[in-house]
Amino acid sequence: VVWAPFFNRHWIDSAAQSIWSDDNTLAMWIRVEVALAQVQGKLGIIPAAAAERIAEVGRRQEDFDLDVIVADIQRTQHPLVPVLREFERLVGPESGGWLHWGATTQNIMETAQALQLQSSVDLMLANIDAVMKRLIGLATDYRATLQAGRTHGQHALPITFGYKVAGWAYELRRHRQRLVALSPASFVARIGGGVGSYAALDGRGREVELALAKELGLGDPELGGRADFDRQASVVGAAAMAAACCERIAHDLVFLQRTELAEIQEDHYPERVGSSTMAQKRNPTRAQRVVSLARMTRSKAAPALEAMVRQDEGDGMAGGVAEFLVPELCILAVSTFSAMDALLGSIRVDAQAMERNLASSGGSIFAEAVMMHLGRTLGRGTAHRILHEVAAKAAEGGTDFSDEVRRHPHLASLAGTMDLDEIMDPARYLGDIDVVISALADGSATADGRSVNGAEMDE
Amino acid sequence: VVWAPFFNRHWIDSAAQSIWSDDNTLAMWIRVEVALAQVQGKLGIIPAAAAERIAEVGRRQEDFDLDVIVADIQRTQHPLVPVLREFERLVGPESGGWLHWGATTQNIMETAQALQLQSSVDLMLANIDAVMKRLIGLATDYRATLQAGRTHGQHALPITFGYKVAGWAYELRRHRQRLVALSPASFVARIGGGVGSYAALDGRGREVELALAKELGLGDPELGGRADFDRQASVVGAAAMAAACCERIAHDLVFLQRTELAEIQEDHYPERVGSSTMAQKRNPTRAQRVVSLARMTRSKAAPALEAMVRQDEGDGMAGGVAEFLVPELCILAVSTFSAMDALLGSIRVDAQAMERNLASSGGSIFAEAVMMHLGRTLGRGTAHRILHEVAAKAAEGGTDFSDEVRRHPHLASLAGTMDLDEIMDPARYLGDIDVVISALADGSATADGRSVNGAEMDE
Amino acid sequence: VVWAPFFNRHWIDSAAQSIWSDDNTLAMWIRVEVALAQVQGKLGIIPAAAAERIAEVGRRQEDFDLDVIVADIQRTQHPLVPVLREFERLVGPESGGWLHWGATTQNIMETAQALQLQSSVDLMLANIDAVMKRLIGLATDYRATLQAGRTHGQHALPITFGYKVAGWAYELRRHRQRLVALSPASFVARIGGGVGSYAALDGRGREVELALAKELGLGDPELGGRADFDRQASVVGAAAMAAACCERIAHDLVFLQRTELAEIQEDHYPERVGSSTMAQKRNPTRAQRVVSLARMTRSKAAPALEAMVRQDEGDGMAGGVAEFLVPELCILAVSTFSAMDALLGSIRVDAQAMERNLASSGGSIFAEAVMMHLGRTLGRGTAHRILHEVAAKAAEGGTDFSDEVRRHPHLASLAGTMDLDEIMDPARYLGDIDVVISALADGSATADGRSVNGAEMDE
Amino acid sequence: VVWAPFFNRHWIDSAAQSIWSDDNTLAMWIRVEVALAQVQGKLGIIPAAAAERIAEVGRRQEDFDLDVIVADIQRTQHPLVPVLREFERLVGPESGGWLHWGATTQNIMETAQALQLQSSVDLMLANIDAVMKRLIGLATDYRATLQAGRTHGQHALPITFGYKVAGWAYELRRHRQRLVALSPASFVARIGGGVGSYAALDGRGREVELALAKELGLGDPELGGRADFDRQASVVGAAAMAAACCERIAHDLVFLQRTELAEIQEDHYPERVGSSTMAQKRNPTRAQRVVSLARMTRSKAAPALEAMVRQDEGDGMAGGVAEFLVPELCILAVSTFSAMDALLGSIRVDAQAMERNLASSGGSIFAEAVMMHLGRTLGRGTAHRILHEVAAKAAEGGTDFSDEVRRHPHLASLAGTMDLDEIMDPARYLGDIDVVISALADGSATADGRSVNGAEMDE
Repeated sequence: VVWAPFFNRHWIDSAAQSIWSDDNTLAMWIRVEVALAQVQGKLGIIPAAAAERIAEVGRRQEDFDLDVIVADIQRTQHPLVPVLREFERLVGPESGGWLHWGATTQNIMETAQALQLQSSVDLMLANIDAVMKRLIGLATDYRATLQAGRTHGQHALPITFGYKVAGWAYELRRHRQRLVALSPASFVARIGGGVGSYAALDGRGREVELALAKELGLGDPELGGRADFDRQASVVGAAAMAAACCERIAHDLVFLQRTELAEIQEDHYPERVGSSTMAQKRNPTRAQRVVSLARMTRSKAAPALEAMVRQDEGDGMAGGVAEFLVPELCILAVSTFSAMDALLGSIRVDAQAMERNLASSGGSIFAEAVMMHLGRTLGRGTAHRILHEVAAKAAEGGTDFSDEVRRHPHLASLAGTMDLDEIMDPARYLGDIDVVISALADGSATADGRSVNGAEMDE
Repeated sequence: VVWAPFFNRHWIDSAAQSIWSDDNTLAMWIRVEVALAQVQGKLGIIPAAAAERIAEVGRRQEDFDLDVIVADIQRTQHPLVPVLREFERLVGPESGGWLHWGATTQNIMETAQALQLQSSVDLMLANIDAVMKRLIGLATDYRATLQAGRTHGQHALPITFGYKVAGWAYELRRHRQRLVALSPASFVARIGGGVGSYAALDGRGREVELALAKELGLGDPELGGRADFDRQASVVGAAAMAAACCERIAHDLVFLQRTELAEIQEDHYPERVGSSTMAQKRNPTRAQRVVSLARMTRSKAAPALEAMVRQDEGDGMAGGVAEFLVPELCILAVSTFSAMDALLGSIRVDAQAMERNLASSGGSIFAEAVMMHLGRTLGRGTAHRILHEVAAKAAEGGTDFSDEVRRHPHLASLAGTMDLDEIMDPARYLGDIDVVISALADGSATADGRSVNGAEMDE
Repeated sequence: VVWAPFFNRHWIDSAAQSIWSDDNTLAMWIRVEVALAQVQGKLGIIPAAAAERIAEVGRRQEDFDLDVIVADIQRTQHPLVPVLREFERLVGPESGGWLHWGATTQNIMETAQALQLQSSVDLMLANIDAVMKRLIGLATDYRATLQAGRTHGQHALPITFGYKVAGWAYELRRHRQRLVALSPASFVARIGGGVGSYAALDGRGREVELALAKELGLGDPELGGRADFDRQASVVGAAAMAAACCERIAHDLVFLQRTELAEIQEDHYPERVGSSTMAQKRNPTRAQRVVSLARMTRSKAAPALEAMVRQDEGDGMAGGVAEFLVPELCILAVSTFSAMDALLGSIRVDAQAMERNLASSGGSIFAEAVMMHLGRTLGRGTAHRILHEVAAKAAEGGTDFSDEVRRHPHLASLAGTMDLDEIMDPARYLGDIDVVISALADGSATADGRSVNGAEMDE
Repeated sequence: VVWAPFFNRHWIDSAAQSIWSDDNTLAMWIRVEVALAQVQGKLGIIPAAAAERIAEVGRRQEDFDLDVIVADIQRTQHPLVPVLREFERLVGPESGGWLHWGATTQNIMETAQALQLQSSVDLMLANIDAVMKRLIGLATDYRATLQAGRTHGQHALPITFGYKVAGWAYELRRHRQRLVALSPASFVARIGGGVGSYAALDGRGREVELALAKELGLGDPELGGRADFDRQASVVGAAAMAAACCERIAHDLVFLQRTELAEIQEDHYPERVGSSTMAQKRNPTRAQRVVSLARMTRSKAAPALEAMVRQDEGDGMAGGVAEFLVPELCILAVSTFSAMDALLGSIRVDAQAMERNLASSGGSIFAEAVMMHLGRTLGRGTAHRILHEVAAKAAEGGTDFSDEVRRHPHLASLAGTMDLDEIMDPARYLGDIDVVISALADGSATADGRSVNGAEMDE
């Protein structure tokens, strides 16, 4: 498991952990060794019987003694050789000699890691798809629920809650596309041997490699070396960006739950406790958890970039970091996305609170609406200057902006042309919000927007 | 300019700086305001004559007084309003009132930044293409130049220098593809107004936005908001990864210039000085510079991810970081790539030194070749154990590995089947190196490998 | 200058920039070369007349042609040799030969940088002291101004605004102490030559070094090498932490200015503009600027740590990063602290809004007060469970917590012992707030708390 | 445990893990609750009998059912309340009501974490002291063992291996001092309750807090809040810097083991395996492991700085990160230092290889020695220019530098004054190396240098 104190162990997604468990890691190593033998058996590079025997033993992972292996790893200072020795012992002398033929340790470990990375990205996508469905649902359900749009923490213009959610959904959909675009090029099999030259495979290296890739459902590495890490780093980058998107959403959901806003509430069921001392506390714990997990996910991007810089044909300094970082990233990213799903599944939207807050700024949120109206006559710049003064007067005096507009001597003369009640009706100043939400729900918003709802989502 | 002390100001690429200069930034702002007016003029949203007048003034950037603007920015605490006021003043009262119609500051600044970012990525690609050409040339020229392949700093297996370069080229080509793949989705026009709802455009917001995007050669933003930063962050990520690749190459070139290796030399022309006190110094300054620039480029990834987390419909805390970070990233990335190009253009390859170093490890670099030979008879594992002992004996005793192989009692009996001279001929133990280099030069190495040499490279 | 687009150039502190300007950097190099000559002249290592002549020329920096030097730096690929040549030319052949005696380039550059770093830290401290004075003033002035204390965004317990400020002040004071503790050990002179062995100084190296350190007011380096960067990194760390503290304060001040809170306002003087389109906007621009600057400052910590890892006796890869990073860090940190000072100087506190918000949570903020009262009779845990139910009922039903307490059957029987009005009087539930504020103002809060107000503050 | 795949689980220090195990974390929570009760019992705030009963139960940690607690944590969404309920159940109704009196969850968790952090820093120091002893031993033992000093990978000037080690030791000693300086101010007890105001303690909050701190051997927090993280961040920073120092040392030790250098060897005992395919490999695995661990340690600095920025009086978004990050940092830092100790305990120094490499640069390493000699007559600058030409000639022609010096027409005329053999004797060009090593061993190198060997080291 990712290190987690007992009090937040439930933060960590268990499916993601399983992919990187000891058992599954060993299983993936065995799977790669077996696939290599099978491919080489078919190609006549090793005896077919040896390949068969290796595969047979590989099916009985329970025969491998992991405790013995772990102890041997410390003694030999080598991560794979003890596994190979155990494997060879189980296979027996005759066929065991054809195990790991032409391979080096990193080939097995990196190819196995590619399989685990691929499964992890699949799991990320499954969780993101679940989140996308919820977001599209919320955007549609609340497409007309009025809310104050805010920039820099200040009321700016009226929006709807559905529109806010649509903004989240559009962004997350782009991250989903980035993650989808990683396959298959980012998950490759490699069998280039000690320096990636395929020297131990007698001129049939690329042939073996491509066959192995096919056997394992992995991509072509182009060159079987061990000194690049760009594919893995691109997964880290895409996952970290998607996590940052979830962090943005969750951060907003923390804010919207603030006592003074109270536009959103998590599921405060009776057993849930907010504080050991303040009994009234209804904390946005689920939203905060997403933020924390996302920050931890993001923190893997910088060391992943550093781990791309490797010396010569192989470099254990960077490799050692990668062995910890890749699983940690995967587990944290999946946990972020599944916590995001749980969060969205738990929230209640308080439309009345949204309306109350929208009304609380005394009409000043319509300054632009008035300006655009006046601008046709006075010019935009002049109208802006007038309304800037009016708004300042209202703010300083604690009066209503709409009253000040009506009272302003200059604007009074334009009164005939303005129906202020209409201009200051938030439902009439929503621009293309409906268009944007519909396009999202249709999944056809843009040329490059692959649909994530409906059938294609299951790809 | 990026801050640079006078003593390394020449590190910074001047073409990249020009894109982000005051003059060009102002030019891009004007360009966006003009394009907006023109598009709105065509669509009948503002008077055609006003649009024309705005375009006319926009062509005379020299009329804008940047000093006045800068002073006004400080006074108003607003980045764009002083420019608008100057623009309006120059346009005159009649048409000036239609300037910036329906837009908010961030729309102009972000769209202008997208133009600058696009130009910067083009410049990155131009420099990377130049680097790619050099790498492919080196890989081809030195495809048969023998060299020690090294992992963890230890001689591993023989390679050729061309193969080492091919490994760099394959990776950089993937980074190039990632940068190419960013267009056009990463460079978008946005005109959604204060909160991205297009409220000020009377239900014609998306229409204006798409027309503006077309006019400026930019992509469709899907939603005209201000609270996402994923597109820019993906550029930062792709550029940082490509820089890390250059860092890997340059770091190897620092190492290969070490006194004890001396396989590579930079251009030590007479005027070039290595040290103010050690007259003999021939430092790998060009290679070190690439490493330093790449590290600075990489350091932008973490704050870019953090800047993706924005509150509500707009957030100046993250936005303020982005205003510095995006230009810095672009300037540093381009500088990294152009310094990489200069470095590769300056190196001399010492094939004799490579051969001398290859020979220096007393034949132990052929342990695998011998093992693979013996493995057919003894089994791979057994052969490995024997040769591990033989190699240890040679290492501890300071003797030649090949002599120890010949002397080993067990191996002696197998002597008849082994022609050790042949087995230990590095030129015969190069695996698929030639295949891999040819595939690179052909540009057809893999299904997803878009060619970077030849015609397509000019895309 | 730090790279800054024209529209936020005023973010950058000009005094900090001056320290790292071309002119001052050259001045510091000259100062170190002159001090070295003078010290060596006094010690009889070089002729006294040569030292005098060198000092004389050093006083006329205007004679050095920086343009020629910059061009020469590019040609020689060396940062200092062109300066030395210009210096030697100005000094003349006789004395010029004794310039830079026994030194290497890095000695001069690092010692000069130490002087600039020291000045920068002094400037940081001056700005932090100004901030501290404002914070202590605010803490004292508003020591009794009631406000809702909030955790996780939820009303928690009543506090006063002075207490909130005191929390900021205590933390910043600790950062100030960390910065003060850096001197003098973090600013050292070094004259160990090419590898730090003082080889060129005939066994008098440490003697020269200590004399030079004394002459320049710098510390003793212990060893005159070039391969460590821990002192500079510790300055980066301390400055980044202090910036993060300012970020915390400013982030709270952004929140307290939100429309729904409105407890704080920046100085919205008439010329100040919030938005080019939304005339009512009164954005927390000053507070946001501090956050942005602090984030940029923080982003230097990771590359500074990486720059500590240097190969052998000197490593230009890390060194090249440091040449950019150290000035950038200093300029950004000082800018953060001076922007913080400007922010605090500009805010207005709205005590009525604070009281209004405090009252808005319907008395539930007193759940703990009631619990502590009941706990004496019922036990803390039981009281918590009862009040958790009561608070949930109020929250779900939208009723007042205090009414629910009164209505609760179990609590009714305890009514005689509770004076709810007294228990729910925020001014009576402030704990040791006054004690803590007084201790801050006294500057004697703790054993390790060096006073920052009053006389000691000027140290 | 920190997440670690089975194949590098032995990288992780088990003593460090124990500090942060579930059992010990629970133990520390219980310890803090017990200490709080005892202190309050003594002060007459809660009944003495209740305090006694609480302490009695606290001594039987085995009675707490951690599985039940973990399940309850997930159900209540609260980390501590389930522990309190179990505690209260075990204590019984009478005394159980006085448990956790006046405290909030964060008070207990942060105070317990301070205890664990303090133990972790003690463990860091114990390991660093072991490393320091080895470094001082190596510096002394090899004080006269000649080696090439290198900068930028190029031979620069002769040094001794002892001097190189002394440079490492001086730096690490400074890091040790920084870690020592953290105590006791960085490890504090806090009992300020929900918002740090001590509201629930009836005006006796600071009294309780100081008594609790004394009871637990912790420092005074000045203010009992929950919104600052600077003390913990300063520990992260100091540990990350010390790790970076170890990374520098280990990185050099990787380089010195390179095939072409071979100046250092790790312990290649017979069972140790370098590669599954290249039997000759003697990889610098121990040194690489230190580098990997140090990089992971460093990667915690940036998220720790970010976690300092907390909203209002408490912020679970940052807090959630800290709950993972602090233990991870501690475990990784201790693992780095103990791996460093193991590395230094395993190396063999090959003095002959050092001498051979030193000689390999054909005398050009003495260019400065010759220059300083000639400089007295010709001036330093002129001498530098002549030797720059001579060295270039030798480098381009592949001849010996010393031969070229002798052949140079200009230098020939000065031959009488130069005994080249003496000038080019590395043992005569070591400057103050001996002085610097002796000062290190004496532990009296500088005013601020607290001794780390001898008695004080055991502090």
